[in-house]
This record gives sequence, C-alpha cells and structure tokens, in this order.
Amino acid sequence: MYIDNPAIYTDYYELTMAQGYFLSGVHKKQACFDYFFRKQPFDGGYTVFAGLTDLLKTLENYSFSEEELNYLKDQGFKQPFLDYLSDFRFKGTIWSVKEGELTFPVLPVIRVEGTLLETQVVETLLLNIINFQSLIATKAARMKVAAGNRTVLDFGLRRSQGLGGVHATRAAMIGGVDATSNVYSAFKYNLPVSGTMAHSWVQAFTDELTAFREYARHNPDDTALLVDTYDTLGSGVPNAITVAKEMEKSGHKLKAIRLDSGDLAYFSHQSRKMLDKAGLDYVKIAVSNQLDEYLIFSLITQKAPIDIFGVGTRLVTAQDSPALDGVYKLSETDHKPTLKISENIEKITLPGRKRILRYLNEDGTFYGDGIIRADEDAPERIYHPYFPAKKSYVGDIKHYELLGKVFENGNIIHSVSDVKESAAYCAQQLNKLSAEYKRFDNPHIYKVGISESLMILRDRLISTLKPDSL
Amino acid sequence: MYIDNPAIYTDYYELTMAQGYFLSGVHKKQACFDYFFRKQPFDGGYTVFAGLTDLLKTLENYSFSEEELNYLKDQGFKQPFLDYLSDFRFKGTIWSVKEGELTFPVLPVIRVEGTLLETQVVETLLLNIINFQSLIATKAARMKVAAGNRTVLDFGLRRSQGLGGVHATRAAMIGGVDATSNVYSAFKYNLPVSGTMAHSWVQAFTDELTAFREYARHNPDDTALLVDTYDTLGSGVPNAITVAKEMEKSGHKLKAIRLDSGDLAYFSHQSRKMLDKAGLDYVKIAVSNQLDEYLIFSLITQKAPIDIFGVGTRLVTAQDSPALDGVYKLSETDHKPTLKISENIEKITLPGRKRILRYLNEDGTFYGDGIIRADEDAPERIYHPYFPAKKSYVGDIKHYELLGKVFENGNIIHSVSDVKESAAYCAQQLNKLSAEYKRFDNPHIYKVGISESLMILRDRLISTLKPDSL
Repeated sequence: MYIDNPAIYTDYYELTMAQGYFLSGVHKKQACFDYFFRKQPFDGGYTVFAGLTDLLKTLENYSFSEEELNYLKDQGFKQPFLDYLSDFRFKGTIWSVKEGELTFPVLPVIRVEGTLLETQVVETLLLNIINFQSLIATKAARMKVAAGNRTVLDFGLRRSQGLGGVHATRAAMIGGVDATSNVYSAFKYNLPVSGTMAHSWVQAFTDELTAFREYARHNPDDTALLVDTYDTLGSGVPNAITVAKEMEKSGHKLKAIRLDSGDLAYFSHQSRKMLDKAGLDYVKIAVSNQLDEYLIFSLITQKAPIDIFGVGTRLVTAQDSPALDGVYKLSETDHKPTLKISENIEKITLPGRKRILRYLNEDGTFYGDGIIRADEDAPERIYHPYFPAKKSYVGDIKHYELLGKVFENGNIIHSVSDVKESAAYCAQQLNKLSAEYKRFDNPHIYKVGISESLMILRDRLISTLKPDSL
Repeated sequence: MYIDNPAIYTDYYELTMAQGYFLSGVHKKQACFDYFFRKQPFDGGYTVFAGLTDLLKTLENYSFSEEELNYLKDQGFKQPFLDYLSDFRFKGTIWSVKEGELTFPVLPVIRVEGTLLETQVVETLLLNIINFQSLIATKAARMKVAAGNRTVLDFGLRRSQGLGGVHATRAAMIGGVDATSNVYSAFKYNLPVSGTMAHSWVQAFTDELTAFREYARHNPDDTALLVDTYDTLGSGVPNAITVAKEMEKSGHKLKAIRLDSGDLAYFSHQSRKMLDKAGLDYVKIAVSNQLDEYLIFSLITQKAPIDIFGVGTRLVTAQDSPALDGVYKLSETDHKPTLKISENIEKITLPGRKRILRYLNEDGTFYGDGIIRADEDAPERIYHPYFPAKKSYVGDIKHYELLGKVFENGNIIHSVSDVKESAAYCAQQLNKLSAEYKRFDNPHIYKVGISESLMILRDRLISTLKPDSL
C-alpha cells in the first residue's frame, strides 16, 4: 500500500515554507538535501536501509488533488501558490543506496537534488517512510542473526502501531524474516504468509482433543497445534501426539506444535522429549511470547530445541528503540554549499553534494566508508568526522560507490528491487560484515570518515557563520 | 483514513480458523469475546481508551472483495468457504466504553457478541486499532497533564511508525494535544493544524535576517521564527527581535520564537529576558527536541518561561512503552462461559458475558471499578481479581455502567463521538481522577474488583479443566 494522499501526508511547515519560497521567488533555486541518521538504533553496529521502493513509487504519483487544494485554501494558502501546486509534480533527481544495504551514522544515504520547493516539500514523506522501514529491517536482521538457520516468523500485526503494521512487515522481510501472519502486507507485497490457530480455536470446541482433530482434518498438510490453552504438558502435548499418530495413519504429518506461554526453554525441552519418545522427531517446535533477539539468543544458548520463532510486538514496534533518528538537511542552494550549526557537534551538518565510497578488506569484507565531495577524486586519507586527529590511509584500498541514481524527471530510472531481492541483498551484505559489528553488546564501531576537502569546506563555513562557536 | 482492505488486514490464522469453524459446522455458534489489557503503559495510573469510531466505521464496511477472495484461493482456501465469505458482513453486537474514557487493567472495555466466525475474524483488526490509539491517547494525556495550561503540539509525523502517524495524531488529540503538524490527519479528521519553518528555510536565504523578514512578510499574522540555525543568542534571537519590531510598525505581531536545540531551560530564560527587554513580552516561546512528559515537567519545575511544547517522536511512538498489551479473548460459546488457563495467573481470563460498574466517591471522583456477570445485580462486595482476601464493600456506593451498546446489525447504532468530543470527554474524566493516579512515579493503583459470582464461576471452570493447576 502506498499513501492515498501523499502530497498532504506531510508536516504543515513544508507547505508554509513552499508557499514562502514561491512568494519570495526563490522556489526554483537549485537545492540539494541529504538524508542521514546520527545514531544506530538498538545500540547496534549497523542499520539496514529500507523503504526506497515505496518512497519512489509514491513520488511518481505525487500531486495535489482538487480536494486537497480546497483544503489548503481553507487554511489560508494563497491562490497563486495553489495554482502552482495544481499541476506540480516532483521532478527532482534522487541518488540512494540500495534497499537492504548496511548503513552507518553520518552517511548521506539518500541525496535529493532539484528545485528548492520540490526538494523541501517531500521531506516529511521521505523521513516517514525511510526512518521506519530502516528501523524495522534492522530489528529483523538482528533477530535473524540471533536465530541463525532457524525460522523467524512475523506475528506482530495486532500490536503494531496502527497502519504502521503494513510497512513493518515489508521491512521485516527485507531484514530477513521468513514469513508473516499479516495477510494484507503479504497480498500487497507478494510475501509468504503463515498461521494456524489461536487459543480461541481450542476453547471453541468441547475439548482440546476434538479441537486438535478438527483442525488437522481440515488442514492435513499444514497443521501446527497450540498446546498451552489449558495444561501444556498435562494435556496439550499428549493430545497433539494423539492427533499426530492419527494423522500418520492417513498419510499425513503434523507440522509443529506451538508454545505461547510459560518458560519456553523448559517447555520446549520437555515437549521435544515427549514428541521424540512417541516417534515424532519430525514435528517441529514453534514458540512465541514477547520474543526479541536477546531472548532468541538466550534460548539458543540454553540449547532449547526450538525450530521456529514467532516474533511480534518487539519486532514490529522495535520496542527497545522505536524510532530511527534520520533527518533531511539542506546541503546546497544555488550550487553553493550550506550547513546548519548547532550547540551539539553531532548536529552540525556536512555541506555540499557528496558521494560515499565503501572500502573493502582483501577478503571482501567491509573496511569502512568515506564521505567525499561529489566532484573530488577518491582521497588518500579519510578523517573522523568530528576528531580529525583520527584518520586512515585509504589510498590503495579497493572501494566502490554506494550511491546510485534511482529517480529522474518524475520517474524511477531503473528497475528498483522488490522485497525478495532486497532481502537477498541484505543477507549477502550481512555476510560481508564481520561478526564483531553484529554482536549485540558493545559492537565494534564501523569506520566512517570524511575527506580532507569536505572537512575544510565545512570548517570554513562554520568560521564564517559563527566565528566564536565553542 | 480507514483501511482499504479491512477484511485481509488481519493475521492469517483468523482466516484459517474461520475456515475451520465453517468446515466443522460450528461457525454459527454463539460467541462472545472481550477486549482488555493487562498492564498500564508507561508504568502509569490510567489508560485513555481510543480508536472506537475508526473501528466501528471499518466494521460497517467490512467485506471481502473479489480480488481478496482470489488471493485467498491462491493460498489454498476452499471454494465453499470462499463462497460464504463473498457475501459475508459483520453483524455482531458490540458493547464498549466511550472514546476518551479512562480505563484500567483487566476491565473488559469492549465486548463483541455474535457468531463464532464473525467475532473471531475481526480480532486482529480490533486489536491493531484499539491497542495503538489507546496507547498514544494515554501518552498525550500524560504530556498534557505535565504541561498544564500550556500548549502542546504534535510534530511527530516524520518519526512515526510509517502510516501509524495517521492514527497517532488522531489519538494524540483525544488525549489532549492542542494541534498537529500532520496535514493528512488534520484533513481526514478535521483537526487544527499548525507549523511554520525548518532550518532549511533559514539556510535557503542569503542570511538569517533576510529569511526571517521574508517569512514575516508572507505570513504577517502567523509567524514563529526558528532561532537556532546558526547562533541562538548571538544572531537568532536578535534577528527575531529586529523583525518583530519591524512587524509592529506595520501593525502586526510576531507570534513566537522556537528553540530546537541546546539547553532549553537556559535558552528559554535568556531569550525571554532579551524579548522582554525589547518590549516584546507578547512573543511566545516554543520549544522542541525530544520532549516527553518528564522533560516537560522538568522544564516547568525549572520555571523555564515556555509557552508551547512541540512534541514528536516520544509522543507518536510512545517511545518508552511503544505497545499496549491489549488482548481479545473468548469468554463464551454456545451461551456457555469459557476461559483460557495459563502458567501466568494474569493470563487466566474471566469467563462469561460481563458488565463494568464504575463507583464514585461523594465528591464525584472515581472510587474504583467492578467487573460483574452481565446477568447479576450490582454486588455488595468486589474482590481483588487474583487475591480474594482483598475486598471492598460497595453496596451503598453510587455507580454507573461503563459499557454501552455501540454496534448492531451491521451498523453503528447511535452517533459515535468525533475527535473533539472525545477529547473533551477525556479532559472531563481526567478531572475526576485524583492527582495521585496521574503522577508519573509510582502512581496510586486504581481499584478494580470482580464480583463473588464471577469469581466462583472462574474458579469452578479452572478446577474442572485443570484440577492440579498450581
């Protein structure tokens, strides 16, 4: 699903500024904005970039309807500006990293070039889509890293932040989740969908065994029995075993049992023993109940015999860090570099049009990234963005460009990835990131540097705009 | 905005269960489900109920389109069931508390009655809408409680969880926020909208003073100047003062300045002094930057002269507690009470159809709530839900019914509240909740009890289903 009124899916100030630019006659000035974030979510070592295809498809259809223009008129917007908006289309040029790419703080992972008005007015839309999908793709990747080759399923729709569930599921799949319970997103984005029964199914029949039998009868090839409605080891697992043996007689196999409460390590061990003793070693064990990457890791450390992790709330809301702090900052107007100064060093922006170089170690793993001016050659050295005494020689290190042109003249300029391709790309890039960046506690900090030329430009602008800036 | 495909905006298992009920021939059995939550979000003292109107309007239009049925066919659903779905409408009866009502754990604040199939299949939809809107309405109410009579604005769209922003804003207004930057939600829900400029506006002109003058020229009656792009006290506030004095000459007044970084207590004090010294005591001070109820409270405690709080991420994502744990549990089938047992006492459900009585102190403030069986009279005593030795005599306490019938035969049965009415109701109810429930640290725990008759019913069912249940 894209947004039904994308042009007004925005902060009001984007429109008051757009009108102001128009009335001041500066709306056609050239401008360039960067999207970047300042801090890894989850105190983690990487962020999976996601949401680009949704953003670009929305921009292809970006326009103001008559109904929207009437609404803006009621808010006091002026007729000449509304007339201008009535046939406005976004014609800017967008450079971006790929969906599924691993990204790091400070990197300008999207660059939007065009007129001042068109680049400004899409800010909120871009931030809303990219911040959230990148956040959830990252959370999903962390869970998948913890789960290894076990299956991870998204069960989050009921606790997702309203309609946020639509894109949470899409992003989770890019990050590595295997399938979802969310039918809507599966339908819209062509994703694998999965699910069997709730406790209410068991309660709806006269007894648990009947409930299990009825489900198996209707779904002989796709039955997972929820065993904790009344008494997990006393009735749930024994009844599941009874039904599994009955299914065998008709040539079918019970797929799994699911545990949704109690101590999952204990119950999975006990259930596995009971199933194995009954000759049902093929029946998988699925678990759910407030899982996240830490609990998955803990269960695996305890050698809990779990095959499938159903994750919900903590995935789709990114519960421990529910927002990515991505921002969209003006870096150039009228082909002149600009920046914003702040009391907080990390909030001072990098001026001008920029490229990103990704450097590779000899084994193909990532060494680090360099941010350089768009018109300069690959530099000899890159410098810490805020502490230039820290620097690295990169003159002879293999590298490639991270940003590619993805949108021009109102259209997506080459085929953008679907979810499956982006998920495959993410998995491939995760393989190129060393384990120490992927651990959950105090991950190794990835090198991101800036070129000397970019540093000089920034520092000169600061000196001009605020000579006494300490 | 309602959901464009509500029938498949659901977990897959709702549909596999619906098909199973249909194939087993039990789909028309009578059933009753309760919606309730188990834990206050934010470790707070109350939860503001919200989302009902969106839910009910969605249910009025709930049906399966041909496109959706084809999709389900591709997933392996069976033709007789798909035929049944093709003219399926939700015809159940819904009882609910009002939007804006203050609610507490365990209370069955929504009761859905109807056939087993129809009451089951709306579960995820109901949970998705009500959990999120109640969460955000609660967060907003907390911020408004902290801000007192100062203005609170929602600036959260850029960091909201994707399309979750649509309903975050709606819910925030019910909780007490005064206006929003979110144009889309303002348009769809008729809410007051607000916003002026970002740092990019200031950067887009040759200098800050020109940028301020240009904005004021185009918006003489609605200008708030963002003063921290380069140097708050060195240039931002002095330039704002210059422009304010120029505005006075043409008969206009600068509305406000906005601070978005640095120490907001320090900068608001300094800015206030500078403005007052220039005779601009009418110019308001707005602040933003990662605010929540705790920071608002802290700023007020520091006597920071702030008039307007712009809140974003921490409001629209409910950052410190981003999900309400509301659940939807079967309480009756075939007119027989049912429950779910769990290892966790708090996860054992209350069987049967129930009513809620709200008891009032003599001064009109809330005393506590009682959950009783639907067919019993108001009881003499109510008991702690899990520890019956704790009980209260309520035989002579004034009370009223909390649940009202809101949906029947496919339609909303009396006019449901709009956002403005619900916000007014919420404010009124907050006035009836004593201060000790509203404080942020260790709030007083509100009394919620169950009747003896309900307790006996529950305990008897547990004994039958799981005699050894400790």
